[in-house]
Amino acid sequence: MFREEIKVLDCTIRDGGLMNNWRFTDKFVKAVYDACVASGIDYMEIGYKSSEKSFSRKEVGCWKFCDENDLRRITGDNNTNLKLSAMADIGRVEPEDIIPAEESLLDMIRVAAYVHQMDKAIWLAEHCIDKGYEATINLMAVSTVMERDLEEALVDVAKSKVPVFYLVDSYGSMYCEQIELLVRKYQKYLPGKTIGVHMHNNMQLAFSNTVSGIIYDCNMVDATFLGMGRGAGNCPLELLLSFLKNPKFKIKPILQVIQDYILDMQKEVDWGYHIPYLISGALNQHPRTAMKWMEGENKNDLVSFFNQMNDKMDL
Amino acid sequence: MFREEIKVLDCTIRDGGLMNNWRFTDKFVKAVYDACVASGIDYMEIGYKSSEKSFSRKEVGCWKFCDENDLRRITGDNNTNLKLSAMADIGRVEPEDIIPAEESLLDMIRVAAYVHQMDKAIWLAEHCIDKGYEATINLMAVSTVMERDLEEALVDVAKSKVPVFYLVDSYGSMYCEQIELLVRKYQKYLPGKTIGVHMHNNMQLAFSNTVSGIIYDCNMVDATFLGMGRGAGNCPLELLLSFLKNPKFKIKPILQVIQDYILDMQKEVDWGYHIPYLISGALNQHPRTAMKWMEGENKNDLVSFFNQMNDKMDL
Repeated sequence: MFREEIKVLDCTIRDGGLMNNWRFTDKFVKAVYDACVASGIDYMEIGYKSSEKSFSRKEVGCWKFCDENDLRRITGDNNTNLKLSAMADIGRVEPEDIIPAEESLLDMIRVAAYVHQMDKAIWLAEHCIDKGYEATINLMAVSTVMERDLEEALVDVAKSKVPVFYLVDSYGSMYCEQIELLVRKYQKYLPGKTIGVHMHNNMQLAFSNTVSGIIYDCNMVDATFLGMGRGAGNCPLELLLSFLKNPKFKIKPILQVIQDYILDMQKEVDWGYHIPYLISGALNQHPRTAMKWMEGENKNDLVSFFNQMNDKMDL
Repeated sequence: MFREEIKVLDCTIRDGGLMNNWRFTDKFVKAVYDACVASGIDYMEIGYKSSEKSFSRKEVGCWKFCDENDLRRITGDNNTNLKLSAMADIGRVEPEDIIPAEESLLDMIRVAAYVHQMDKAIWLAEHCIDKGYEATINLMAVSTVMERDLEEALVDVAKSKVPVFYLVDSYGSMYCEQIELLVRKYQKYLPGKTIGVHMHNNMQLAFSNTVSGIIYDCNMVDATFLGMGRGAGNCPLELLLSFLKNPKFKIKPILQVIQDYILDMQKEVDWGYHIPYLISGALNQHPRTAMKWMEGENKNDLVSFFNQMNDKMDL
């Protein structure tokens, strides 16, 4: 699929950090950064932009904040073609945390929001644009949003100056027909804007749903090294690059980092396809219950987890 | 997706046996059989029908042959709704190995063949039908078949009395658009016949390609417990059942067997998504080179494997 407009965003540190509270070594973050540069990746989302009032550094690593000093330690002046991104959650960041873009190593802020927060998301994204950043809005958990609420949100986004809007399968509960319906809806309501896709792998559909998004003309696509990310993880970057035929993308630097770091990390941080994530995804539920189960001693007692979830809904 | 015509075939023992030479304990095979019965699975493919001249029992377990005595030890008279299937490879079975169906516990023989073997496959499948069995032809490695050869094979199959023809992604190298094109072609050339799908997971697309097949009206679908199968494995049965909404299917018996047996087996028989399988799939190559690499001491040296494969083709 050679389409020059397609931009690939690596969010290994940001989404993977949800599994270890962003406690990555500098060496690893630098390896990911170097590989993104060498592989021709367009954006690297290196963490969250959060307020120090919202989180304690005793509990989370520095990539929950993305201070300039931390960024510079990894990227220097970042004189590369790789743009740096941070995600901002509504209510977890103050307007004054967003310094002018010309003073920051960050190029883009992605605002993550639930549908009821859409007004705040538009305000924050436009605030970032006014500060000189690229900005996107990533509507989370759209698989649980009522049609009327979704369409009202899309009407508001259409009127904003935010140029990119993301289809996010937070629960890993969608398959290709749902992707098509939602992408078509987003495109209908948001003429002229770029649609992005961010998929989760609860049902082993993160890559195929990303491909579906690409087929339906989504031009911002998220992925992570070996799919590292919350719960079942994300679309694997190495798969995405093997699919995209644009010669600017190189797969080997990604494989080197997987080999040198990530295969070992997976033994400790157990993201990926596991039955509890399948069950939460198939039931269109937040993965938090499945993640808690996977942290417990009885994580392989699949039938008990099934019974617990099934008290509520019959799968 | 509630469509009564859809038949699910479990091939855990047959395809999984490619990873351990069919050396399964009777206890495990019985557990899979019991779970298939309890879950409402339509067919269980319990192994291959092979000639004793072709393989030595010193090297392969009894499910490479599927003798009646071995079958009966597991299934008794099989007074259930589950039908039993065996696969036959062209050249590895003699006509006289196919006893009359009324003397056998097997209900179906699936003939696996490459495109140049299609005449022999039609002969053997019709021989099985004449002996009283259901029969299918599974055309392997279609991703490397030239269009002219494929269409000639389809014309011949159309004239046969074989009622089911399978789309098989032997190399795990296809994605949804290729599935659609091939299913449409099979349907065009084979009016009135049932199309089946058998997918491999090299690019994490086995389940999504199976869903695509179902969307395009394929009504025989293969899957295995936790995707156990050759190399990257198959479409996971638990995912398929969570997608199919036919109330006759139950997921819990499958989860119980995964919990009791298969999670442990996966530690020893290392099927599933691994980078060497992605590379062979993306290059549309037989997985044998990747499987050999995965058995070696340097299996995690991903870059060396990439370089070796890349001597031939640039990924």
